[in-house]
Amino acid sequence: MQIAAIVGGGNVLTGDDVSARSVDWLSAAGCRAGAIVRPASTDELAAVMRACHGAHQPVVTHGGLTGLVHGAEAEPSEVVISLERMTTIEDIDPIGNTLTVQAGAPLQKVQEAAEGAGRQFALDLGARGSCTIGGNIATNAGGIRVIRYGMMRQQVLGLEAVLADGTVVSSMNRMLKNNAGFDLKQLFIGSEGTLGIVTRAVLQLRPPTSDVQTALVACPSFEAVTGLLAHMGQALGGNLAAFEAMWQSHYRLLTEQSGRHTPPLATDAPFYVILESLGTDAESHAALFSKALEAALEQQLIEDAVVAHSASQRQGIWDIREDIEGLIQTLAPLFTFDVSLPIAEMERYVAKVEAAITHDWPDGRMVTFGHLGDGNLHLSVSVGSHADETRHAVEAHVYSPLAELGGSVSAEHGIGLEKRAYLSISRTPEEIALMHTLKQAMDPLGLLNRHKVLAPAAG
Amino acid sequence: MQIAAIVGGGNVLTGDDVSARSVDWLSAAGCRAGAIVRPASTDELAAVMRACHGAHQPVVTHGGLTGLVHGAEAEPSEVVISLERMTTIEDIDPIGNTLTVQAGAPLQKVQEAAEGAGRQFALDLGARGSCTIGGNIATNAGGIRVIRYGMMRQQVLGLEAVLADGTVVSSMNRMLKNNAGFDLKQLFIGSEGTLGIVTRAVLQLRPPTSDVQTALVACPSFEAVTGLLAHMGQALGGNLAAFEAMWQSHYRLLTEQSGRHTPPLATDAPFYVILESLGTDAESHAALFSKALEAALEQQLIEDAVVAHSASQRQGIWDIREDIEGLIQTLAPLFTFDVSLPIAEMERYVAKVEAAITHDWPDGRMVTFGHLGDGNLHLSVSVGSHADETRHAVEAHVYSPLAELGGSVSAEHGIGLEKRAYLSISRTPEEIALMHTLKQAMDPLGLLNRHKVLAPAAG
Repeated sequence: MQIAAIVGGGNVLTGDDVSARSVDWLSAAGCRAGAIVRPASTDELAAVMRACHGAHQPVVTHGGLTGLVHGAEAEPSEVVISLERMTTIEDIDPIGNTLTVQAGAPLQKVQEAAEGAGRQFALDLGARGSCTIGGNIATNAGGIRVIRYGMMRQQVLGLEAVLADGTVVSSMNRMLKNNAGFDLKQLFIGSEGTLGIVTRAVLQLRPPTSDVQTALVACPSFEAVTGLLAHMGQALGGNLAAFEAMWQSHYRLLTEQSGRHTPPLATDAPFYVILESLGTDAESHAALFSKALEAALEQQLIEDAVVAHSASQRQGIWDIREDIEGLIQTLAPLFTFDVSLPIAEMERYVAKVEAAITHDWPDGRMVTFGHLGDGNLHLSVSVGSHADETRHAVEAHVYSPLAELGGSVSAEHGIGLEKRAYLSISRTPEEIALMHTLKQAMDPLGLLNRHKVLAPAAG
Repeated sequence: MQIAAIVGGGNVLTGDDVSARSVDWLSAAGCRAGAIVRPASTDELAAVMRACHGAHQPVVTHGGLTGLVHGAEAEPSEVVISLERMTTIEDIDPIGNTLTVQAGAPLQKVQEAAEGAGRQFALDLGARGSCTIGGNIATNAGGIRVIRYGMMRQQVLGLEAVLADGTVVSSMNRMLKNNAGFDLKQLFIGSEGTLGIVTRAVLQLRPPTSDVQTALVACPSFEAVTGLLAHMGQALGGNLAAFEAMWQSHYRLLTEQSGRHTPPLATDAPFYVILESLGTDAESHAALFSKALEAALEQQLIEDAVVAHSASQRQGIWDIREDIEGLIQTLAPLFTFDVSLPIAEMERYVAKVEAAITHDWPDGRMVTFGHLGDGNLHLSVSVGSHADETRHAVEAHVYSPLAELGGSVSAEHGIGLEKRAYLSISRTPEEIALMHTLKQAMDPLGLLNRHKVLAPAAG
């Protein structure tokens, strides 16, 4: 077998070694691919892709398998390319603030290496221990600090990818500025492995922040929430790092209703916000944060607040926001959604979707939280069934109103297979046609993550 | 004439109305295009491009004509599309922090509109009064705040472009997060009008910063300069907004040698840096800045410093750095360069280029300044001639060493016609081939800014 000669026989998995692998942490479904190939280097991967290209063999790329849109699913006729052996951190440049890494390295490994060099890597998300840098790039991961540092796209200075025909495109730029020709790396960021396989990257490191200030606040209205966002952005300047909103439904469910968390604030406010600021000089940063909160109280943007005075108090606040297990336990069967829309429209949108859900399912429930500062909401909907047709009915209620609002059916999770049918809600026919043009130009045989993101072209 | 019917006869300029226009503010060369067409809207521009596409008529797009790489040059066989009538600011959303604008609007108009709404637009550069948002996007403009806010690419949330065949691709996203399919806007940012004509954009606004702290410091060594960059990044957190370095050659030339500026600090240090921090709370921000400078003095990262205590003192510091007229007056004839490279390599690189210049031209001079925090240097070289062959000889010395350093022949100015021959110093054959693939896929007739960025494909 040609591929075994490239990567070594032990790195071509078949049979039970394939099916024993879960490709979806939510469903725990096993991998159905014909084989799993584990190259050790860009050169090996390029040789594998040349062989696959010659044989018209479609492939599916696997990173940390923490995706949420079925982007890792493979059919028996497909071969999985796993980056699990390409995890080396190749270089750290503390002067240029860069870290060079193979794409299979877990996010947490990169974070720790940056910290070891007196710097930080800005992307952070719950799956940090499993998700890989390549997956973060391919899906343009978001997370909890986007309002300050941007998404994964903003952390990538340089990138190397292998194209469908095995060509290695190496754009390993290390500077903040480089306008020498088209910025090709952008093609591979967020295109979910459909245009190339990311093999290495140069990541931007940031100065460390030594002081964190966290508060949970209660807001009397949605207008107060948006006023608070503007106020804190101005008062904290470049330090504001998180602005996470919870509708009363979400806060109440995970505190008094589930009994999983003691509510730090009474549960009768319509909105709650977790504010977090990352600063340097501890004393002056704490004073700045207090002053900003006091001004917000005076302006009646908030009606109550609790500031974390220890790491455990901070964690206690975040635990409410991040308790996905609690959501599942109390609402299952449930459907979860990841949408974005203009912030000013959020209150009306949430009310509209909730009304549509409870109209069709009188016992249905919907709770809402999200990265409000980023325009990103996560909706959790429970209507008593997990059937596919029920899901589609709920999806229609969640996604349809986004069209006229200019919203997105995927803020940060991507399209994969799950949202492919809804892409046209967020993108015009001309945009989708241009996506097909790019796919056709870069992968004319349709070998890379086929049928993900884009439906097969008509005709 | 078909195009006159679309835009109105008065908006198709010919003859003297064309040649009287300068296309290059350095050379003041007149426009040589066959005509200048001025559409008033995206629809008009789309109709113009459909007509041009049908007639295989190549076009060159004009924004504010402040470019530095001959990207606006047109031949008599080409038609210029000028965005000068598309300058409307369509919408400002202070809650979502977005501004929607037509591409022909000058940068300064956008900055002022943002300020009028209690926000700021982060991009800033010297040509702000003339340069347009469309040009800023097409060239991925940089400027003086990249270290804090990123380049133009980071300011663009959504974008609309007209393709070579007149198709309108409207990706007018207004959210910080949108992972619904390929991020098509990235194709049009920084590709210098070769893949489409940018017609509208949604720009990200930022909270205003009310306090600015500026200092000029003298550093005893290049190691101290890089140490200072790390120190200030950490000490000032998200506030550090400028880290502009001047080699002694540059500082001395514009102060004591030219007599144009009184030197705020003695001229015997090897390096000078302008530090600027943008904060909110004036009192605590000033204290934070002073504390950071004092620590730098203690650590001997700087040997002297002057802090601006008024707007005019601040301007006096920046005037040295920004005195391009002084550079021209004292060094003409001169060649200027815009390169980027890993910061750690800069001292050796500058010494190497300077040695090569003075080897070939014993009376030659080179002075160096730049956005050091961004990896971006501007070199000014004077060897007594402005002849093309001299330029090419100097270019060889400036650009050649960048290849092994992974540097760029263009940090922020772009490629245009001027640097096209040097693209291969900064990009691999596989990258350039992929650029041609994209160009071929999106503009198969080669109508848009032809021969800019990419040389005509061989064969």
